[in-house]
Amino acid sequence: MATRSTIMDTNSFRPEMAAALDPETRKLTEEREVLGPAYRLFYRNPVHLVKGRGSHLWDADGVEYLDVYNNVASVGHCHPRVVEALTRQASLLNTHTRYLHENILHYAEDILSTMPDEIDRIMFQCTGSEANDLAVRVAQTYTGGEGVIVTHEAYHGNSALTSKLSPALGTAQTLGLTMRMIPTPDTYRLTIDGKPAAECTAAEFGNWMAGEVRKAVADMNRHGIKFAALLADSIFSSDGVYPDPVGYLKPVIDTVHELGGVWIADEVQPGFTRTGDAFWGFGRQGIVPDLVTSGKPMANGLPTSLMAARHEVLEPFAGSIPYFNTFGGNPVCMAAAQAVLDVMRDEDTMGNAKRVGAVFKQAVAGLMDAHPCIGDVRGAGLYIGCEIVKPGTKEPDQKAALDILETLRDNHILTSVCGRFGNILKLRPPLVFSESDVDWFMDGFTKTLATLGL
Amino acid sequence: MATRSTIMDTNSFRPEMAAALDPETRKLTEEREVLGPAYRLFYRNPVHLVKGRGSHLWDADGVEYLDVYNNVASVGHCHPRVVEALTRQASLLNTHTRYLHENILHYAEDILSTMPDEIDRIMFQCTGSEANDLAVRVAQTYTGGEGVIVTHEAYHGNSALTSKLSPALGTAQTLGLTMRMIPTPDTYRLTIDGKPAAECTAAEFGNWMAGEVRKAVADMNRHGIKFAALLADSIFSSDGVYPDPVGYLKPVIDTVHELGGVWIADEVQPGFTRTGDAFWGFGRQGIVPDLVTSGKPMANGLPTSLMAARHEVLEPFAGSIPYFNTFGGNPVCMAAAQAVLDVMRDEDTMGNAKRVGAVFKQAVAGLMDAHPCIGDVRGAGLYIGCEIVKPGTKEPDQKAALDILETLRDNHILTSVCGRFGNILKLRPPLVFSESDVDWFMDGFTKTLATLGL
Repeated sequence: MATRSTIMDTNSFRPEMAAALDPETRKLTEEREVLGPAYRLFYRNPVHLVKGRGSHLWDADGVEYLDVYNNVASVGHCHPRVVEALTRQASLLNTHTRYLHENILHYAEDILSTMPDEIDRIMFQCTGSEANDLAVRVAQTYTGGEGVIVTHEAYHGNSALTSKLSPALGTAQTLGLTMRMIPTPDTYRLTIDGKPAAECTAAEFGNWMAGEVRKAVADMNRHGIKFAALLADSIFSSDGVYPDPVGYLKPVIDTVHELGGVWIADEVQPGFTRTGDAFWGFGRQGIVPDLVTSGKPMANGLPTSLMAARHEVLEPFAGSIPYFNTFGGNPVCMAAAQAVLDVMRDEDTMGNAKRVGAVFKQAVAGLMDAHPCIGDVRGAGLYIGCEIVKPGTKEPDQKAALDILETLRDNHILTSVCGRFGNILKLRPPLVFSESDVDWFMDGFTKTLATLGL
Repeated sequence: MATRSTIMDTNSFRPEMAAALDPETRKLTEEREVLGPAYRLFYRNPVHLVKGRGSHLWDADGVEYLDVYNNVASVGHCHPRVVEALTRQASLLNTHTRYLHENILHYAEDILSTMPDEIDRIMFQCTGSEANDLAVRVAQTYTGGEGVIVTHEAYHGNSALTSKLSPALGTAQTLGLTMRMIPTPDTYRLTIDGKPAAECTAAEFGNWMAGEVRKAVADMNRHGIKFAALLADSIFSSDGVYPDPVGYLKPVIDTVHELGGVWIADEVQPGFTRTGDAFWGFGRQGIVPDLVTSGKPMANGLPTSLMAARHEVLEPFAGSIPYFNTFGGNPVCMAAAQAVLDVMRDEDTMGNAKRVGAVFKQAVAGLMDAHPCIGDVRGAGLYIGCEIVKPGTKEPDQKAALDILETLRDNHILTSVCGRFGNILKLRPPLVFSESDVDWFMDGFTKTLATLGL
């Protein structure tokens, strides 16, 4: 563990920090003992939030924060149309999928209309973990294989199955015997055939990654494991945000298919207009998955997720094994999800992510010359990764990243970190983030870097 | 499959039944093709519900139904206090457990106050499947074993792990290599040492079941598997409802502990005052679990679940592996759960379950003489199992049970079946079921039996 930190053990409060807290915050952190030690609070000085609206949050003292982290409140905290939709449906009826109800059918049709025609079936769960858990089982049944490939710092869920496919959970979590990891597609640090990855074409970088898939499958086969699926999100969120060069996943997915596997596109992070270029992350990459999963941004905080599929991929599992998810696809969750989708269209969150995301990325990148601790700024739409390094090197500087995080928090700006070394600022605000929010962030970020002398 | 049916493939609509439906219902069933073949609708003539209140439901034509099935709407469909609580919180803030929030702490303390002192930690998820999935991992980490015991017709969830512990899903679902099944504690049909189980004392029946646990663990050990847990609900819902004799689980749990395992009390079915005798099913049995899971009745339909634990059992897992459930324990779900708990106290759902449940059970049992197709009526509180058999025998009559179910549905009374042979009517209404609801049911049930000549 000494040589490696993960998103899970970096930005977090630990009980020994309690002495530095104000009495009220300390009391709340102490009361959390009842939740056991697995829960992690963000920040050395945890935030006690009580109100949210748009991309802003307020703590118990009335202090306003800028939210540059939360993708669950995708259309903005407490969006009135979502609240109204869920209230209306919760007042009328909330049952399950063993009775007929229009909400699930309307939403199924509507959300599938955002996907390629090949993706023509959809099932609903409550969490992204449940969606990925189911998708892996569907892929395994379809292919008759067990082997799943993920990237080196992937996080795909908290169920028994998906935890074993989530190296980002740290070394205490054992990985599956039939899973294999391929390297993070690190366009900042990798060198491909002597050429910096950042200078590679999509085909060059994609062919390198496809080769890694081939090696992983060859190793599986050597151990008697049949390849089933590549499980990956197209922005490699937990690995550290690697969306470019656009198109690099095409040779990778072609190879997955050639080797008899399927691609499960984990759209928990890049989906729902986040990247600004397309409704789905895979759309931005111009590729069609076999299975699609999503959750977090889908219903603005109501526990709702989906697994969509090509019908021929779904059939072997769904035709033989009953699947009932008591709360999945219930009329209230579907009403909230529908309201989110309606808002995404009516408020053009995709256009906003593209426009504001570009301004945001350019503004952060504009600090690189004056602040050599910023080694790389990359991203798509409102998903930006900002590498904090030791100046003049590409060496990750987790300590500086955490100091920045904490100082930003003290300046009432909330974000977090990701990547293998926990040194990459993950800038992923609600999709309604505005240009004045960018100004607010830049003001606080500049002040933070000055305070820290970085 | 021919010799065995499960709850999953009995009460369900199949596409070949579509021709008999009215055009509107047929259209809705056809539109469900988009959901794939794993979803199952109840009834040959599926019900299209649009409104619910208390223990009553209404379809799209305005026809009122009596709900004798749904335990999710535990305090009654669309209880105004729950709707109000979730609306209020959804309008204010909905985030996650990485920020401080009072709701989760208040609810954690309040719900733990309903449990024995030994159970002093709690974590929140979104579904019962997630709670059981986590509980099994916690038990395995604590014991260092892999082996899990369930009953022969158990259903514990839809995740990869819990599906492999759910024989009720049918034979297409493979079971785990390290799990073992023990027989259903069938007090109606079993004979223990030559004595009908129904005549056994709690100690006699419990010792028989403890012996089955011993045999299962011995078989595990023979295969090099270390015993970790018995995963069972104390009413054996999916097996067919076997709550009595009170106390029979004591020797079973003692044996589990003696053999180094833990008991995971799956309270998705018997918990939250359902049995009328105690808040939790294990409370009715006078035993203290090591881990407690629940979900369905907890937040009246909002996806919310819990896993509670003795701190020493939780520690090895939670102290080493981070667990974050994005939606689990969020302020909105906690507000809804708190409202449910408040209503349960204020409206005394436990007292209602006891009082009305007794009247209900007695009324159904009162039909046995005149209707020999009713072989046994058993239950606790508002959880009643009614065996439909071939008259004069104990032979399960699934066809008659399904005919009853469908005729009840035509009489606007909704319920379903459970048990290995799908012949046991599962009478499990919202906890606000009233004596006049019992009258309504009895009227429809009597009419149904007359119609069918049973």
